[in-house]
Amino acid sequence: MRDGQATRRRMLDAATVEFAERGIAGARVDRIAASATTNKAQMYSYFGSKDGLFDAVFAEHLSAILDAVPLTANDLPGYAVRLYDAHRKHPEFVRLAGWARLERVQHGPLIPDPKGHAEKLTAIRHAQDAGIVDPDMDAADVLSFVVALAMTWSPLSVVVAASPEETGAVHAGRRRSLDRIVRRSFATPPQETLKT
Amino acid sequence: MRDGQATRRRMLDAATVEFAERGIAGARVDRIAASATTNKAQMYSYFGSKDGLFDAVFAEHLSAILDAVPLTANDLPGYAVRLYDAHRKHPEFVRLAGWARLERVQHGPLIPDPKGHAEKLTAIRHAQDAGIVDPDMDAADVLSFVVALAMTWSPLSVVVAASPEETGAVHAGRRRSLDRIVRRSFATPPQETLKT
Repeated sequence: MRDGQATRRRMLDAATVEFAERGIAGARVDRIAASATTNKAQMYSYFGSKDGLFDAVFAEHLSAILDAVPLTANDLPGYAVRLYDAHRKHPEFVRLAGWARLERVQHGPLIPDPKGHAEKLTAIRHAQDAGIVDPDMDAADVLSFVVALAMTWSPLSVVVAASPEETGAVHAGRRRSLDRIVRRSFATPPQETLKT
Repeated sequence: MRDGQATRRRMLDAATVEFAERGIAGARVDRIAASATTNKAQMYSYFGSKDGLFDAVFAEHLSAILDAVPLTANDLPGYAVRLYDAHRKHPEFVRLAGWARLERVQHGPLIPDPKGHAEKLTAIRHAQDAGIVDPDMDAADVLSFVVALAMTWSPLSVVVAASPEETGAVHAGRRRSLDRIVRRSFATPPQETLKT
């Protein structure tokens, strides 16, 4: 049993590298099996298919990010900065999400009902009711905007993606700008406060 | 000669569909050739290789977007909304850019020196000097943020990508929110104005 778990772990780790690098269609199961020092038959017995293996890899990384960076609706700037840091630490997650988007789900939500999504929207609405977040914007749009801003230099950026050789000062500058922009974007405007 | 141009046009159009759908590695040159009612030999004589064909397709779409949506540094909200509209009209361009990012250029600028890029940064700096855009932010970062915001619901979004069946009211709401957020994010803050 412990051996089985260790094998499964090696398969998931090898699959993460392969899928993040080459995507779903481009990944080769025999390359993953070789890298995990197992074989294709065992891969299929664990995960059913290449798509099943991708699902397992993506679900694991998604869950890790969701746990590591809980939404703080009363502190959206802090959430954006923590998301930026998490994506920087785990670019492979962002690339997996990019492949899933390009190869699988062209329109609508990338993940049909991500863990805790309804709770996130409720938390944003509460922050709107409390005057902490501008109430004059759809809660789902607020979340989409914050994620988009946090991903400004992500491995999916069509402008500039962060590079490993960038200095800490570059990242500090980005975190500062991100904090400031999210703060400005979603704070309840003063005139709105006066009106209520 | 006119025949040659028509053939080239059919190849580029067929290649756009194939590359946007399947990416560079996933595209099949014989499928493109069949769709363009030509053959692989002729494709290679025009474009050299599958990569050369992708380059030609991507360069053409990039150039079209850059021409269609010039940067208006004194009106960044308008620029963001026009970019949103252009991406919505040409999701295939955004998907081509996504494949280029995932398959080719993991770090740094996606396009090494895009046409008019230096002029864009100069225009943003002028708008900063004129007090129209917040001077306390790197001009390149301003551009990256505005593009990221305009792409909030793009075919590369890891949250929600726009769907063809969405109503005009949905898009009108997004355009309004986008305009507002870009306006708030990059306007020179009142206290900064007072300090000068």
